[in-house]
Amino acid sequence: MNREELFNLIREKKSYLCVGLDTDIEKIPEHLKNTEDPVFEFNKKIIDATLPYAVAYKPNIAFYESRGARGWKSLEKTVDYLNKLDTKVFTIADAKRGDIGNTSRMYAKTFFENMNFDAITVSPYMGSDSIEPFLEFKGKWVIILALTSNKGSADFQMIKQSYGDTLERFGIKSIFRKKLYEKVISTTSKWGSPDNIMYVVGATKSEYLSNVRVWAPDNFLLVPGVGAQGGSLEEVSKVGMNSRCGLLVNSSRGIIFASKGEDFDKAAAGKARELQQQMEKFLQQKKLI
Amino acid sequence: MNREELFNLIREKKSYLCVGLDTDIEKIPEHLKNTEDPVFEFNKKIIDATLPYAVAYKPNIAFYESRGARGWKSLEKTVDYLNKLDTKVFTIADAKRGDIGNTSRMYAKTFFENMNFDAITVSPYMGSDSIEPFLEFKGKWVIILALTSNKGSADFQMIKQSYGDTLERFGIKSIFRKKLYEKVISTTSKWGSPDNIMYVVGATKSEYLSNVRVWAPDNFLLVPGVGAQGGSLEEVSKVGMNSRCGLLVNSSRGIIFASKGEDFDKAAAGKARELQQQMEKFLQQKKLI
Repeated sequence: MNREELFNLIREKKSYLCVGLDTDIEKIPEHLKNTEDPVFEFNKKIIDATLPYAVAYKPNIAFYESRGARGWKSLEKTVDYLNKLDTKVFTIADAKRGDIGNTSRMYAKTFFENMNFDAITVSPYMGSDSIEPFLEFKGKWVIILALTSNKGSADFQMIKQSYGDTLERFGIKSIFRKKLYEKVISTTSKWGSPDNIMYVVGATKSEYLSNVRVWAPDNFLLVPGVGAQGGSLEEVSKVGMNSRCGLLVNSSRGIIFASKGEDFDKAAAGKARELQQQMEKFLQQKKLI
Repeated sequence: MNREELFNLIREKKSYLCVGLDTDIEKIPEHLKNTEDPVFEFNKKIIDATLPYAVAYKPNIAFYESRGARGWKSLEKTVDYLNKLDTKVFTIADAKRGDIGNTSRMYAKTFFENMNFDAITVSPYMGSDSIEPFLEFKGKWVIILALTSNKGSADFQMIKQSYGDTLERFGIKSIFRKKLYEKVISTTSKWGSPDNIMYVVGATKSEYLSNVRVWAPDNFLLVPGVGAQGGSLEEVSKVGMNSRCGLLVNSSRGIIFASKGEDFDKAAAGKARELQQQMEKFLQQKKLI
């Protein structure tokens, strides 16, 4: 799915909601546990229920890997189900991978070729040749960790770079000291374009969103941290939205585990609808719909 | 396996060699391809042949994931085989994971509990709460990416931190501007100890090894990049070795794909033996054996 198609989908559904499929077998309703593949059954029902309100789905790979080969089967079936829906959706493998070239190439093959995800989250720490193999896949996206939603993000992402480095270039953007997350965005954005690179920026870090937009005015941002982690959808939308929306706001636990009963899918739909309705309002305020 | 046991194993085998099981199905000998699980058959033969010369084995998870559920089965069988050997070996999941707390906990469970690896490689970008869940497992190790062997490592790992940050502390180590990889080591080393934290430092970066030893005098270093990537075992050993050896030097392709014929295991043993013999010499020079 290209950027224009994603924007069209957002306008059509009046939503920029991404549903995080962090499907923890311990937390899914009891009545599903006797089915052949409880994780897949759960995902299918969540997807069906939230489909009117969501444009993207993001399986969190850790939760599938933790169940070994069985978990991989559930993951493969889930992405296959997402790819065969009547309504096209944007699919994200939340994998946070990144390794030397030949290894990143294997990861890219796994998620883009074998499973046909639209996008994968990657860590920038190992630099250009750890990300480029993903960018070689036409029509696919990398979503680079920039400023994450967790407390520990301050440990390294907020480190200030010395003058010595930033003065190497003389553009207006370079006369202040960049923090690492800004350096990550300004550097990596040259490796691709807003048509194949997005950034992860936590909703809990909305005070930095205007900085992010200095370096990535046109890129889509994947924004986790609304809900369970405490970020504000309103603030994120006000500061982060651009002329193509440019936001995918993720909610995982707040939607998929809204109820533990047999009505879990209806409860999930209710939570997704609440977020969609707020999003519709923000899209209207920005005159995008 | 604790640090003393690892050091004893190194003295016993006169080797600090780690064999990287980057088992690419495309590259394994033809005659194995008709077996039920070619990847596992290949690994088993490589392990048996190199066991006299190696203290550690490091499956590269990308190569298993790329084959989906089948690949996970090969991985599970491989680590199970390693754990049941008569001679104990140190097992490393080369996974480069790292995510918010609840997700890192799932990855830790996967690799430490379900598969019983001794260690896992992790990316530091997301900070403390992305690494702590791994450190909570008693007797297990995290191996944090510090200065990697690839070209792109210069993009971010070599960024200089501003004076403003480093002058916050007044110890002797803090009066020069740390590079990001140094900051990563100096910060993360406080989250655990040399008994549960190692660092990845590429053999291609041996000129920085003495800096690494300023911040991590006692930690083991996992050193990839000897062989196919061009790093020198001699330089790494001279600069990096400490009083408990403190080095695990990895070779993957150089050993496991030394021959594509039916003699692939013998060829692998030959290459492993070559490295072991050099290592024996360096251990003697350091008076560790």
